[in-house]
Amino acid sequence: MANTQILLASRPVGWPTEANFSIVETPVPEPKDGEFLVRVRWLSLDPYMRGRMNDAKSYAAKVEIGDVIVGGGVGEIVASKRAGFDVGEFVVGSFGWQEYAASSGAGTMKVDAKRVPLSAYLGPVGMPGVTAYIGLIDIGAPKAGETVVVSAASGAVGSVVGQIAKLRGCRAVGIAGGKAKCDYVTRELGLDACVDYKAGHLDEDLQAACPGGIDVYFENVGGEILDAVLKRLNPFARIPLCGLVSQYNATSPYGVKNFGALLINRVKLEGFIVSERMDRWPEALATLGGWVAADELKYRETVSEGLRSAPARR
Amino acid sequence: MANTQILLASRPVGWPTEANFSIVETPVPEPKDGEFLVRVRWLSLDPYMRGRMNDAKSYAAKVEIGDVIVGGGVGEIVASKRAGFDVGEFVVGSFGWQEYAASSGAGTMKVDAKRVPLSAYLGPVGMPGVTAYIGLIDIGAPKAGETVVVSAASGAVGSVVGQIAKLRGCRAVGIAGGKAKCDYVTRELGLDACVDYKAGHLDEDLQAACPGGIDVYFENVGGEILDAVLKRLNPFARIPLCGLVSQYNATSPYGVKNFGALLINRVKLEGFIVSERMDRWPEALATLGGWVAADELKYRETVSEGLRSAPARR
Repeated sequence: MANTQILLASRPVGWPTEANFSIVETPVPEPKDGEFLVRVRWLSLDPYMRGRMNDAKSYAAKVEIGDVIVGGGVGEIVASKRAGFDVGEFVVGSFGWQEYAASSGAGTMKVDAKRVPLSAYLGPVGMPGVTAYIGLIDIGAPKAGETVVVSAASGAVGSVVGQIAKLRGCRAVGIAGGKAKCDYVTRELGLDACVDYKAGHLDEDLQAACPGGIDVYFENVGGEILDAVLKRLNPFARIPLCGLVSQYNATSPYGVKNFGALLINRVKLEGFIVSERMDRWPEALATLGGWVAADELKYRETVSEGLRSAPARR
Repeated sequence: MANTQILLASRPVGWPTEANFSIVETPVPEPKDGEFLVRVRWLSLDPYMRGRMNDAKSYAAKVEIGDVIVGGGVGEIVASKRAGFDVGEFVVGSFGWQEYAASSGAGTMKVDAKRVPLSAYLGPVGMPGVTAYIGLIDIGAPKAGETVVVSAASGAVGSVVGQIAKLRGCRAVGIAGGKAKCDYVTRELGLDACVDYKAGHLDEDLQAACPGGIDVYFENVGGEILDAVLKRLNPFARIPLCGLVSQYNATSPYGVKNFGALLINRVKLEGFIVSERMDRWPEALATLGGWVAADELKYRETVSEGLRSAPARR
């Protein structure tokens, strides 16, 4: 029985290409005593992975050339030498871009396939959802009636941020690229407005969407969008800094011009990583799971069939 | 008896010139019931004043054309129709660029001319000192052994920041312009190192001065200095954002290139204004006054004789 794995073949410069990856077949690992074997059913493709492919200091260890690419997955236990993890149970964890993974259970969590669909544990009831929850609630601290803006508003994190803002009684405004994404954000997710940053008049559209200014900005993107938002911040605004996806494939960094707005408005900005706030996961997962089960939190998935299709995904 | 006043004649573009100010003689105001009259002995010249001269949204009301320029002063009560404020007592308050001011006492504080010199209430035991104290202690939260970097390290705020960092057991590193200022910072104020940003190798010098990275950056300056510091931040660094003096006279803003470091290092940044944290002033003033009286906190003053000399000062 073979284990398909996807390895980092070379470090991308700018956008990754399929040539940066290699696909290999290796023997399926044999679980040692105290381990179990997972067959990965779903693999999540997330923006943070791009940073791990660089040969640069970041918040997490980089992927070395020849290593399996990191990634969160949800799978079924197909063999077990660890008490409490039984064959047929489902677990979520960082299993990497491969079909089979042996695990001691550290960093994994058993999940209930009957409560919400399995793949949701990689989305709204998984790392992206918890990222949205912790960033918005703990750092953004939105109050009812305030205006919350989120960039990458149709994405895995952003779509949850906007909906939580609505559930908390805020005016929720998304920023996304293109009419289709913006329609999704307002019509399906129920945000009050969505600014299409590709439409060519970001400043004006943002002002129109945020007549009372911006109290919380959940930042996923950076670049020109950040500069546009900085101009509209209210005093004492909060910025959970979650991602800067516009910069991950950039070969020279964007210069942020309106940095002074952070001083003028006495802004609190905080960069954060969800994996460093494990104490907040139980509350977040319980709340998010309840919302998804009750259909109060909507989500959409882009599904690619087969592990071998991953390197070509954007 | 005439009151010399300095008014805003026109809004500066870039660096202010003497033509932006007008000097007038007006009658000395007569204190109404519940007011007292102050003869200003010392006027403080501070960077925040530049922002007030602009026709732009900021954290404080702008100075209108024809208005007396705002400014903190310390003076003697020379007439009083307010109980508890007696002739011969000294008060500190926002009296503006003028010789005499009538005041109800709101926003003023009586000071003891025998404990520390009167002018110190405009410096280390006044607004700049309290700014340093609150920004460093409350936002920077330095721990013994950490590295604290402060820009404008020889200035009214920066010089107090660096010395408090030393008193707290930190490695304290200043950034200042020119050898004379840097010598002052290390030899007289006692900081561990000072980087001369005008010497032409800021990145290298900062790295050499901070071999263990930077845990707290007290920001007064912005621009290229900020970008250089961002490269050297440690995980979980804190940035009290107090000023961006390099930008106050700039006609086009500097683009901050290393903004991503705030995400990678999970940094907390917070803009603040000392006048919005009045609850912290008593502790700060008591502590700073004790340090100055005990000669544990050193300071240097640049004194200009006569109110009429103010418009030409830089």
